[in-house]
Amino acid sequence: MARLPSVGDRASFTKTLTEADVVLYAGLTGDLNPLHVDDRAAAESRFGRRVVHGLLTAGLISAVLGTRLPGPGSIYLKQTVSFRRPVFIGDTITATAEVTEVIEGKRRVRLYTVCTNQAGEVVLEGEALVLVPEGDG
Amino acid sequence: MARLPSVGDRASFTKTLTEADVVLYAGLTGDLNPLHVDDRAAAESRFGRRVVHGLLTAGLISAVLGTRLPGPGSIYLKQTVSFRRPVFIGDTITATAEVTEVIEGKRRVRLYTVCTNQAGEVVLEGEALVLVPEGDG
Amino acid sequence: MARLPSVGDRASFTKTLTEADVVLYAGLTGDLNPLHVDDRAAAESRFGRRVVHGLLTAGLISAVLGTRLPGPGSIYLKQTVSFRRPVFIGDTITATAEVTEVIEGKRRVRLYTVCTNQAGEVVLEGEALVLVPEGDG
Amino acid sequence: MARLPSVGDRASFTKTLTEADVVLYAGLTGDLNPLHVDDRAAAESRFGRRVVHGLLTAGLISAVLGTRLPGPGSIYLKQTVSFRRPVFIGDTITATAEVTEVIEGKRRVRLYTVCTNQAGEVVLEGEALVLVPEGDG
Repeated sequence: MARLPSVGDRASFTKTLTEADVVLYAGLTGDLNPLHVDDRAAAESRFGRRVVHGLLTAGLISAVLGTRLPGPGSIYLKQTVSFRRPVFIGDTITATAEVTEVIEGKRRVRLYTVCTNQAGEVVLEGEALVLVPEGDG
Repeated sequence: MARLPSVGDRASFTKTLTEADVVLYAGLTGDLNPLHVDDRAAAESRFGRRVVHGLLTAGLISAVLGTRLPGPGSIYLKQTVSFRRPVFIGDTITATAEVTEVIEGKRRVRLYTVCTNQAGEVVLEGEALVLVPEGDG
Repeated sequence: MARLPSVGDRASFTKTLTEADVVLYAGLTGDLNPLHVDDRAAAESRFGRRVVHGLLTAGLISAVLGTRLPGPGSIYLKQTVSFRRPVFIGDTITATAEVTEVIEGKRRVRLYTVCTNQAGEVVLEGEALVLVPEGDG
Repeated sequence: MARLPSVGDRASFTKTLTEADVVLYAGLTGDLNPLHVDDRAAAESRFGRRVVHGLLTAGLISAVLGTRLPGPGSIYLKQTVSFRRPVFIGDTITATAEVTEVIEGKRRVRLYTVCTNQAGEVVLEGEALVLVPEGDG
């Protein structure tokens, strides 16, 4: 299980967000916003084509936190996300988390979290607060 | 497509979060935190069994915003979430959004967003900021 | 839960039917007809390429009935479907239901149901019979 | 590819309809009727628990027609379905098709189609009309 990290520690996870991901995510959550599931409506929107659900992209941050930094066993307390740019189907997104504060007594860790696309553009950013349980949690 | 709502408007969406949802979400995002996918590790954690990914539960808020209030065509700008209580596999979650502010010139809508479980306990809450495009977006 | 609608009430739902939808549907149902899952065989068929399963397209009608008209809680009693034109992967299909008869005593509703593609062509049509339970069903 | 069958020919396909099937089907079609995705609402309904989407069960008929009788390459022209009994998550359903008429000149085949559960009860029945293309279709 995870140990308390230090300020400045960083980790990333990269995944291509495919059409299958979007189709499945729509079903898991019930978010059938036409921007995600209707090619015609999306073509007439400001984006010009279907976009990936913002919170699906944010899920890549959850992957970094829960598997790399702080890592396995981490408990999510808070997340803020600002959606900066659309993510299109087929974009390859890198989620990165960097520790900005460690509250030792409470075993809480604050992290700056950001997702960038294959062009290096920030598509979303925010802050996470995570609890790192001792021993068996 | 969605129209600008009024302060006080509310809408909800309810869904049971099943094991299949958790398995699929782990695959879509790469969040393989043992708390979600490892029965043994989860049994030894403070939760005693596997829990649903926090951002998967938050996705039900996205469903409310994108299909009911403000509704189809809405564009997500921001979301904050505080995870208050664990969600267990099989819990039936109701996501509710209530409009707290309408910024007419910018067509932005602020909403209080909350998820409750079948016992009526708040499992997650926060705030959303959404853009409601005019006409064809 | 749903209320008894009136003759002439209409509702629609639109979704793009993607390759992921077809792949998953083949797995859910076991319908591995080469017209749906074998590019080579489909290329030699009268359609020239893989087509979407007819009953998957019909599922969009079920979405209209179960979420919009008559809406949540509706119970499906009967459906007839005539498949008029092939639906290709990537087509954006609009399912529409229109109430043609309300049998008040039995709380049954008959609807004309039709699916059209992005070119406005009818791909499938038929009739549904639905029960709208009172109160808690 | 399929040959023209004879009156009286029969074939079946059996599959357990799991929670994962229902979760995925809800996403493919957008049918989020609470009877399928909301444990609480389903518990208060006449069924007492979540039921499988009727047209998902009907998809097993499509599997019989498209893979066994008439078999690969068959083109669906028509299907009628009457939903006789609820199908619950975990039920094992056998779909059977039996040829009732062969229209040789048009290469059309009419079949009686029925689905039964593990108790042998009819859950849905109806009639299919299928085209069996010659040679490469």
